Parts: sequence; C-alpha cells; structure tokens
Amino acid sequence: MPQTNGERVVADLKRLAEFGRYKTGVHRPTYSAEDVASRQWLAEKFAEAGLDPVIDGIGNVIGRNPRATRRLLVGSHSETQPHGGWLDGALGVIYGLELARAFAADPALAGLGIEPIAWADEEGHYGNMLGSRSFTDALPDSEIEAGRSRDGVPLRAALAEAGFAGRPRERLDPQRYVGYLEAHIEQGDWLDSSGLKIGIVEAIIGNWNYWVTVTGQQNHAGTTQMARRRDAGAGMVRLANRIYDRFAELAGPRTVWTIGRMLLDPNAPSIVPGRAEMQVQFRDTDTAILERFEQALYGLVAEADRAGPCHIEIAPISKSEPAAMDAGFQTLIEQAAERHAPGGHLRMPSGAGHDAQILSRRVRSAMMFVPSLNGISHHWSEDTKEEDIVLGAQVFADAAAAILQAG
Amino acid sequence: MPQTNGERVVADLKRLAEFGRYKTGVHRPTYSAEDVASRQWLAEKFAEAGLDPVIDGIGNVIGRNPRATRRLLVGSHSETQPHGGWLDGALGVIYGLELARAFAADPALAGLGIEPIAWADEEGHYGNMLGSRSFTDALPDSEIEAGRSRDGVPLRAALAEAGFAGRPRERLDPQRYVGYLEAHIEQGDWLDSSGLKIGIVEAIIGNWNYWVTVTGQQNHAGTTQMARRRDAGAGMVRLANRIYDRFAELAGPRTVWTIGRMLLDPNAPSIVPGRAEMQVQFRDTDTAILERFEQALYGLVAEADRAGPCHIEIAPISKSEPAAMDAGFQTLIEQAAERHAPGGHLRMPSGAGHDAQILSRRVRSAMMFVPSLNGISHHWSEDTKEEDIVLGAQVFADAAAAILQAG
Repeated sequence: MPQTNGERVVADLKRLAEFGRYKTGVHRPTYSAEDVASRQWLAEKFAEAGLDPVIDGIGNVIGRNPRATRRLLVGSHSETQPHGGWLDGALGVIYGLELARAFAADPALAGLGIEPIAWADEEGHYGNMLGSRSFTDALPDSEIEAGRSRDGVPLRAALAEAGFAGRPRERLDPQRYVGYLEAHIEQGDWLDSSGLKIGIVEAIIGNWNYWVTVTGQQNHAGTTQMARRRDAGAGMVRLANRIYDRFAELAGPRTVWTIGRMLLDPNAPSIVPGRAEMQVQFRDTDTAILERFEQALYGLVAEADRAGPCHIEIAPISKSEPAAMDAGFQTLIEQAAERHAPGGHLRMPSGAGHDAQILSRRVRSAMMFVPSLNGISHHWSEDTKEEDIVLGAQVFADAAAAILQAG
Repeated sequence: MPQTNGERVVADLKRLAEFGRYKTGVHRPTYSAEDVASRQWLAEKFAEAGLDPVIDGIGNVIGRNPRATRRLLVGSHSETQPHGGWLDGALGVIYGLELARAFAADPALAGLGIEPIAWADEEGHYGNMLGSRSFTDALPDSEIEAGRSRDGVPLRAALAEAGFAGRPRERLDPQRYVGYLEAHIEQGDWLDSSGLKIGIVEAIIGNWNYWVTVTGQQNHAGTTQMARRRDAGAGMVRLANRIYDRFAELAGPRTVWTIGRMLLDPNAPSIVPGRAEMQVQFRDTDTAILERFEQALYGLVAEADRAGPCHIEIAPISKSEPAAMDAGFQTLIEQAAERHAPGGHLRMPSGAGHDAQILSRRVRSAMMFVPSLNGISHHWSEDTKEEDIVLGAQVFADAAAAILQAG
C-alpha cells in the first residue's frame, strides 16, 4: 500500500495558500497573477515528483507520467472563490500530487501511475468548469470567445495576460486512464456534525436554474390606488411564497431549493415596482425529482401569470444533469475508509458541482470528501482539522491503489 | 376677478422646462447648474411682475410684495425628479407667478397681493422638503450639516457650488399671509380617468416608512440541508406575503401600501441569503388607520421573529402626519371650480407629500390639482392637456381672489 506523508501534504497546502492569502483563506481568482504563479509552482512540484508537467491553453496543469502502464487521473481545481477557503479545490490537487509521490516511492506499485491535475476555473470566474470541459472536448470555441468575467474582462484577454494563449489544450484519451478520482472538502456539515471522517460520493447532484421575470407597471406609491396597481414586487413575493410551499411538498429527502437572487426595479421606497426578477434553483441526484420540480415551477408561473395583474415569464438558465459516481470505485473507497476510520464514513450525494461530473461522462469517476468544520464553504473561514486532512490523504491513496490493482 | 393669461402660463412653463430638458420631460435635480439657472430665471420673472425677488440661503425663490395689505403665499417646488416631468412642481410655481401678474393688473384687486414662491428640494435630492421646512423654522441646522445627495455630495458643498451659501434663509411671518396655496398635477388618475378638471385636496396623506431586516445564515445553496437553513430571503418573502394579506384586511377605502425596496445579501444564485431587507410604506389621511397598520406590522414582525428560524427586526424610517387642508379655502376653491368647470371637480386626498403639508402647520393652507394624463408621475412622459393647464390657472386665480376677499 502507498504511504502518504501527512506533514508534507499539510506543508504543501499551506504553501499553496500563500498565493493570494486573505485572512485565514485565499483570494485567487482564475487567471489572476496569484493564480498563474500558483499554477507555475504546481508545475514545478509535479516535475519534482518525476512527472512531465504541462500548463495547457486553458490553464489546466497536468503532471504526465510516461512510464506507467495503468494510470489514474487525480485532481481538482486550484483557483478559489473570491475571498474563499484555503482547501476548497486545493486539497484535491495536493492529494493528487501526494499520491503521485507515494506511488513513485513504492516499488510494489511499479507500473501504476498517478497523473495529478489542477483544473482551471471550476469556480466559474470566466465560464462554467472551463478546464475539465476543455479536457473532455465539451467546451465549444464559441464559449471561449464569449467568456467574460463579472467585471467584463474577456476570457481571451485573461488567457493572453496569463501567458496561456496560443498553447494547445490538452485532451482526454480515455484509453490512457483507469479512471478519474477527485477529493474535496464536503462543503456541508453531514460529516462534521456526525463526527465522521470520510464521505463517499454516490452522485453529484443535478442543478437546475431559472430566471423568473415579473412585469407590472411602475407607478407612484402614494397616488396609485391599490385596485389599479400592477405591483411586480408583490407579484414576485406571492409567487415565491407558493414556490416555497409547493417545493416542500414535492421534495425528496435531500432535495434543496433556493431563491438566492431577487431584484426589484426601480427598487425605490416610494415607487410601485414595475419589474421584478428572481433566480430559482433546485438540486437533487434524482432526475425524476428535478423534472417534478420543473413541472411544478412552470405550473405555478403559468397560474400566476393567468391570475394577473402582472405578466410572469420563466426561462431556464442552466440544467446540469445528476452524475452518478462509479459503483466499483465507491466500494473500494469505502473499504479504504473502513480500514483507516472504522465506522467513520458515509455514502452521500455531493450537493455542489465538481469537475468529476464532467469527467464522469467520459471515464469511470469517483469522489471522496473530508469534513468541513461547521460546513462552512466559499468563505475565507472554511477549514478542516489537520488530522482529517492527513487521514483523508492516506484513505485516498489506498483507494487509488486498490482501483489501479483491480481488474 | 383676476384674468389669467393661459398662453403666457403655457409659454412660461415651456421656457422653464428648457432648463434641463430630457426627452419630453426635465432632469433638473436640486442645486444642479440647471436648477440654479432656473431659479435665477424665476427671480427675474418675479422682478418683471413688479415683485422684489429673493433667492435665499437654501435656494427658495420668493417674490416679495411690499405694497399689498393682504397677501397669499402661492407656489410649489421648481426642481424635478431625475428624468422627471415638466409640470410636477413647476406648474404650481408658474401659477404663483401668473396670479401675481393677474392681481397686479387688476385695479379692483388693489391691496391684495400674491407672493409667488419656488421651494427648494421638495423632491428630496439632499433632504426632506428642505425649502418649506427652512421657511417654517422646521429644519434644524444639524440636518443641513448632515444632508447629502445619493451620490454622497454634502448639502453644504452643493449650496456653496450653487452660490447660495452664506445667504440668510427667509423665514415665515405668519401675520404676513392670509394663507398658503399650492397647485400641482394630481400624479394619480382619479381626475383623468373620470374626465374631471379640478381636484380640491381635503388632506395630504401621512406617509409611514419602516425598514425590516431579516438575519439568517449565509450558506452554500447546494450543500446546506433544508432543515438546517436559516434563509433570510425566504424569511422576507414569507413575512411580506403575510403583510400583504393583513394590510388588505385593515385598509380604509384609500389606504395604499408598498414594499418598494428589497435587498438580498449576497444576492447570488447559489448562496442561501444570510440577510434580507425590505422597506415597508403605507399612507392614509386617517391617523387611526396608520396606527392600525403600524400595530399590525409590528405584530407580524414579532410573530415571524418568534417563529424563526431567522431573526427579524423593524425600525421606523419616517412618519409624516396627515395634514388637513383648510376647510374654508377648500370651499372657495370648489366654488371657483364649479364656476369654470361645472360638475367637473372632485374633493380628494393627496396621496403624495407636498410642501403644503409643511406650511399647513403654520398658516391656513390649501391645494388644488389639475389632471395627470394616465396618472403618470415622476417620469419624463408625465403630461397634462394644455386646456386643463389654462383652466386650472383661472380657477386657481379666482379661488385666490375669493380667499383674499373673504374675512
């Protein structure tokens, strides 16, 4: 079995967190100077581990292993959310590096190779999982042309500034790999609140998103009689209230739904809102539940539109399908977890999206979670106990070895 | 009876609208270059009418009439809302000017004088009815010190830039006037939708405003279980829904209520909102109804706070008391309206606030409305038929004469 070095893992994570340090977290948006420097540092670490590093035309950093006969691709993304956590993404990248080192150091694992990878822009600063979609031929050129940051910087300009423009983009050869493994912090509190150490991801949830637009009539809030109003804000509130009620009735045990964004126009205290918009999202691993929610949502919108007095429209924004993780890989991760943390593991869905959902369309894929303290995520205060980081690395390495050794 | 010159009224209104013209409306915020120029133009017009014009330290423009023995103060505000209408405010100012001219031209009205006035900042670019409050000793210096525009420009700096700083502020001598009259466009559609020509304002509504703040827990919208969420957005929607229901039960025939402003934080599609705020407003001429609404609102907030899971707080922002207009003045305006537009007038409340509510605390005050086409207000497309503008001026002049001639 490969022997991971927990001290080395923690030290590398801390070094990586220096690129863009913010309080106890990290601010390292994709293609920022800190992100580019951190990718160059990762390439150097991959080289030190005896691999052939490549930073490709979209910013993915991969450590090619030309000697192995059976390989696993192992990684996650290395950029962070704005003022995000030091482990989110980075943990899975450094685990990939550590696995490559541990496998290389163990003569008993000769011929079994790990190729670590740091995906670009899973966090969506310029697009939607650009790195893993580029790698799996699922990123059209048109999307690269159209990509922009929230500040309006074109993706092309950011790639040029980063020094990545003009480089070839690495592509997946499915024959090259037994599969893809990704470790990540849980980002929720199932593990932490139960004192568990390892999560074995059964599926990555599908995430369906919609814009709902309510069109009324902007008017003076003092002089417009109630009976004559077409208040878009009131229309939105009434509809949102019905959505909350109906979704609660339709939910499966782990369905989640959120109205995270609401806008009134003109959003002034003495003006009857003429327009209101909200973004409705729901997630589940079960496509049947997602379809049930969608049908209910469209029904409620149509009903509210018919009832008036506002005109209400709905448009889909994005619909990611649920992605099942490989069943055989799950069993082997679970066995490794049971060996190092008997009874301390849980099969669970991933409520967040991950590059593994993109990879799983092309190769057998699996994910492993370590606990997030208090479930905090996408915030600089995100953290995980050092002992859990160390334990997770060893479980992950054992699982990788078992996967590579299996038929 | 004084004879107004309708052509002159319309021509002066059109000339005034040149200061800051925007499409068919006007963009003339208080103390902007256009506003300052328009006030200088008004002062010149007051001088041409034989009055002694003063632009005071807050920007009010008054035409003093030293010769009259009985006087009415007649006017409105001259600045506009951003990209607002050409008549809102301006109409009442030009009517004041026209009345001054008509009275001066009629030997039968010798000794009866009109002092026209253009108030500063009724529209609240830098404060709350600054001009009329300054004039009635209801504007503390501390508020002048603290005043700022939405863009953060201090009121003091704006007054200095306008050239008004250091001038004395004119103050009301209640003995000087029989009362105050203000004409305005209705800003609603009671008159227009009924084909009526003149509104006689019975009272200006009280306008009570509150901030409601919902505090939950910001979290990842994919990984946070529904049962553990404290979603501030959902808390706000649930509460707003109850507020709409309850207010409809409590309303008087002309009560209006509005939630015009809502904010989610961080207002991102994949983040459970940690904080939500909304501004709740209601208006009525009846203080008993306002108190009933306030009690219900506080009750609903307390109930929602107790029920959880979010913490909900409420704080008052402002509460203007309803202001009754002088009953004797109303009768005389109604008689003048009946003379020129038999059956074409209506007693009604003013749903919007006006300088007359400030003046009414110190002198007998009244307001007269002319129709707003389709009730549009605070928008550049606001308009009134020219024949209604002309008719309104004559009714207003007749009413002023009757008021000055009455005991």
